[in-house]
Amino acid sequence: MKNYSRVWLSLFCFSVILNLLLVTYLLIHEGNSTPISRFGNSNDHNELSWTRKSAKEAEIVAAISCSGHGRAYLDGLPATTNSLEGIDFPLPSCECNSCYHGSDCSQFSSDCPADADSGDPLFLEPFWIKHAESGTMTVPGWHRMSYQFMYPQKSTLYSRELERHIRELHAMVGNANTTGKFMIFGAGSTQLLNAAIYALSPQDPPPITKIVASIPFYQLYKNQTDFFNSKSFKWGGDTSMWKHRSQSPEFNSTTNFIEFVTSPNNPDGKLKDHVLLESPDVKTIYDHAYYWPHYTAIPAPAKEDLMIFTLSKLTGHAGTRFGWALIKDEDVYKRFLDYMILSSLGVSRDCQLRSLKLLKVVLRNGKEFFEFGQKTTMTRWEKLNKTVSASKRFSLQKLVPQYSTYFRNITAPSPAYAWVKCEREEDEDCYEALLRDGGIIGRAGSTFHAENRYVRLSLIKSQDDFNWLLQRMDALVSQEQVHEENGAEML
Amino acid sequence: MKNYSRVWLSLFCFSVILNLLLVTYLLIHEGNSTPISRFGNSNDHNELSWTRKSAKEAEIVAAISCSGHGRAYLDGLPATTNSLEGIDFPLPSCECNSCYHGSDCSQFSSDCPADADSGDPLFLEPFWIKHAESGTMTVPGWHRMSYQFMYPQKSTLYSRELERHIRELHAMVGNANTTGKFMIFGAGSTQLLNAAIYALSPQDPPPITKIVASIPFYQLYKNQTDFFNSKSFKWGGDTSMWKHRSQSPEFNSTTNFIEFVTSPNNPDGKLKDHVLLESPDVKTIYDHAYYWPHYTAIPAPAKEDLMIFTLSKLTGHAGTRFGWALIKDEDVYKRFLDYMILSSLGVSRDCQLRSLKLLKVVLRNGKEFFEFGQKTTMTRWEKLNKTVSASKRFSLQKLVPQYSTYFRNITAPSPAYAWVKCEREEDEDCYEALLRDGGIIGRAGSTFHAENRYVRLSLIKSQDDFNWLLQRMDALVSQEQVHEENGAEML
Repeated sequence: MKNYSRVWLSLFCFSVILNLLLVTYLLIHEGNSTPISRFGNSNDHNELSWTRKSAKEAEIVAAISCSGHGRAYLDGLPATTNSLEGIDFPLPSCECNSCYHGSDCSQFSSDCPADADSGDPLFLEPFWIKHAESGTMTVPGWHRMSYQFMYPQKSTLYSRELERHIRELHAMVGNANTTGKFMIFGAGSTQLLNAAIYALSPQDPPPITKIVASIPFYQLYKNQTDFFNSKSFKWGGDTSMWKHRSQSPEFNSTTNFIEFVTSPNNPDGKLKDHVLLESPDVKTIYDHAYYWPHYTAIPAPAKEDLMIFTLSKLTGHAGTRFGWALIKDEDVYKRFLDYMILSSLGVSRDCQLRSLKLLKVVLRNGKEFFEFGQKTTMTRWEKLNKTVSASKRFSLQKLVPQYSTYFRNITAPSPAYAWVKCEREEDEDCYEALLRDGGIIGRAGSTFHAENRYVRLSLIKSQDDFNWLLQRMDALVSQEQVHEENGAEML
Repeated sequence: MKNYSRVWLSLFCFSVILNLLLVTYLLIHEGNSTPISRFGNSNDHNELSWTRKSAKEAEIVAAISCSGHGRAYLDGLPATTNSLEGIDFPLPSCECNSCYHGSDCSQFSSDCPADADSGDPLFLEPFWIKHAESGTMTVPGWHRMSYQFMYPQKSTLYSRELERHIRELHAMVGNANTTGKFMIFGAGSTQLLNAAIYALSPQDPPPITKIVASIPFYQLYKNQTDFFNSKSFKWGGDTSMWKHRSQSPEFNSTTNFIEFVTSPNNPDGKLKDHVLLESPDVKTIYDHAYYWPHYTAIPAPAKEDLMIFTLSKLTGHAGTRFGWALIKDEDVYKRFLDYMILSSLGVSRDCQLRSLKLLKVVLRNGKEFFEFGQKTTMTRWEKLNKTVSASKRFSLQKLVPQYSTYFRNITAPSPAYAWVKCEREEDEDCYEALLRDGGIIGRAGSTFHAENRYVRLSLIKSQDDFNWLLQRMDALVSQEQVHEENGAEML
């Protein structure tokens, strides 16, 4: 009996210890998960209330598998079947990269052309997926309904926090000196480029302003100028026509000029400076969309009177439509503001919030971010170069390594675009006759007012797009070599 | 000894039962909270991973107290002191409603004028706070980086889901017939109004298009036309000048007209129709910003060839900058698209996502939403009317109850603005001499090309703004009565 008692005692002790352990665990665990009341003020934020549903939704959509060749978005078209049960919203379907299809983007069409046309900067997407936590934002339904930011001294249409972060970013990267400059936001550089023309060309008195750029140039400059069809300005063509303008038969002393300088240049990635000589009747707009360490060495901070930058080519968020201008002259700044108010009442406050969120991540992870971007473009450029160097028909623009003040190092070229040239005299229409027939979609030289023996190929799209482009180029170059060998045999 | 053994046995049994209960509780509890792996596919969504931080941030910012007279936003200026501990980001400071100040907006300045100037639609904010859960969205860092929505058949700059929801909303409300109409998105009606002018006025051949509107009209029509200074169109003034235009000395058979019709009208809230007779040289832009049940009875669905709507006045999200046009003619639609591409490469995809999120809430809670909106504007109008009816100096526009197909009922007037008139002949400058000196900021009649004996007062701002406006108007009217009594005593 004594033994029994001892056994019970031992078992009891064991059970009591187990109970104590379980209760302790429960107390600690529960202590961490007291729900905070809605809008309540609490220091314990592990539990969420009204944001939980949208957060869940975002995680569910992110978890949809598109085989690594596409992506499902919150506002995608509803898929025909729900792949997850118990969800009260229709799941969006995958949006596939070019040449991929099927409900999960797993099927590849090998007869599909490699699309290297647009400057869609998806090469930066992997960075944002890696930094999922810090790049995500939660926007309550009542966020900034007003037209205005209600700052204590003055209401504005623009986020001062965003402006402050942009200045900080330029200082960190060393690509622009913002001291003493006004800043204006726009819907990408697209809206700002047109605003700049309006801001720089006086409406009256009537002297017309000629808008000029150096071939090859980004076609938007001309297209916008033509479309807006203003009494104040008109397209003036290539800068070389006006370099010695006093000798030009069309010269008129009352003509003003606005020169667009794109640096690095789109399409050829070269750093550029103005062509027209400085004079009171010449104004210059510096389009610095690509003046970031992913695309070029940064020799020195830009400090021109009117500079335009865009989020699209910086963080890769082309869809957000956000850009900014740095402006020295106060009157020009005021006309810029007028344009923004009359054109769209400023930039979407939602898009300002998102830009701020993204720039905070870039500021916090600057080195990693720019190294990732630069490494990607550099590697792509190297690979394409290697392929093209085996060809006698095609060549690429010449770019040389340069010292980058950002990386404090000599950096190899890493342009956003390849500016392909067809070297043979008979290949006047390089794009139509060679690349397009070889299954490559590029942008013909004529789009940039250059000869059609040039074609721009984008190096900043998704990895799928680049891989397919490279394969197609490889095939074209191999074909050329086979032809040559055959030709040699025939001799 | 036997007894001891029994006691131990009983205690042991009790302890074991407790063990079992605790373990069962833990198993159930843990079963509900297994974390889903990042981007993992799981049916259990109670736990969040990479969205948790931003969700927490949103809840913390929403919990900042601004005494009910202001609000803290995610992108607000950092407050000098953190009111919550253990948070790794600077908390934003409160942005206070007009006349309120202090770090928590608790202080009121009674010498501050009542600001009834802008059409900032904050009267709808309480609805969005009530529907916190369904109105909130979580946007991952990699959301829609591309310029394009990659739909299977065709890439676009526009969300088809958003378009579908807008069509559904018009069908539910019965305020527009969208059948057979193309849809285009813009940065609020602001961008669309200008786009419409460009889309309707042919660039060549050269006949100039005159842009006209009926006094009193929304000043943006003229300001935009003047600013863009196009060769294709110019401001033509009040429609009444052109009603019988063949008799006008300025008449030229090659002149085209574009008439702006704002219905309900801004400023006076009246339903309007075109004034110029229909003819091939006359095009009409219907600005239906206020054609929603909060502001007017809906007699029938609008079905004009070119109609413009905006989210600002529908959901109250003016800051989002989103609107849409419904267009019958395909050529006009194509030129509209050209404008949108050349002006801003379409509308921010972030702002399209947010608009979709908000419209889903409106569609799901239509009756509650429009009843809340209509009740607010109607009550404000009634209160102001009651105050003004005691005055001989001031009067308001006459609006009558009408049958609303939406509410299936006769509804009392509920305009967005009061169009105040000073009745006495000597009060030519009603705004300067009476209202502004009485501490009320409104928008002078001349802004709408009407006489300055009219002033527009906004009824759609925050409740604080309306309450203060009403108090100031009460004071003005009481003052008038005291003056009258004093005058009577003097006789």
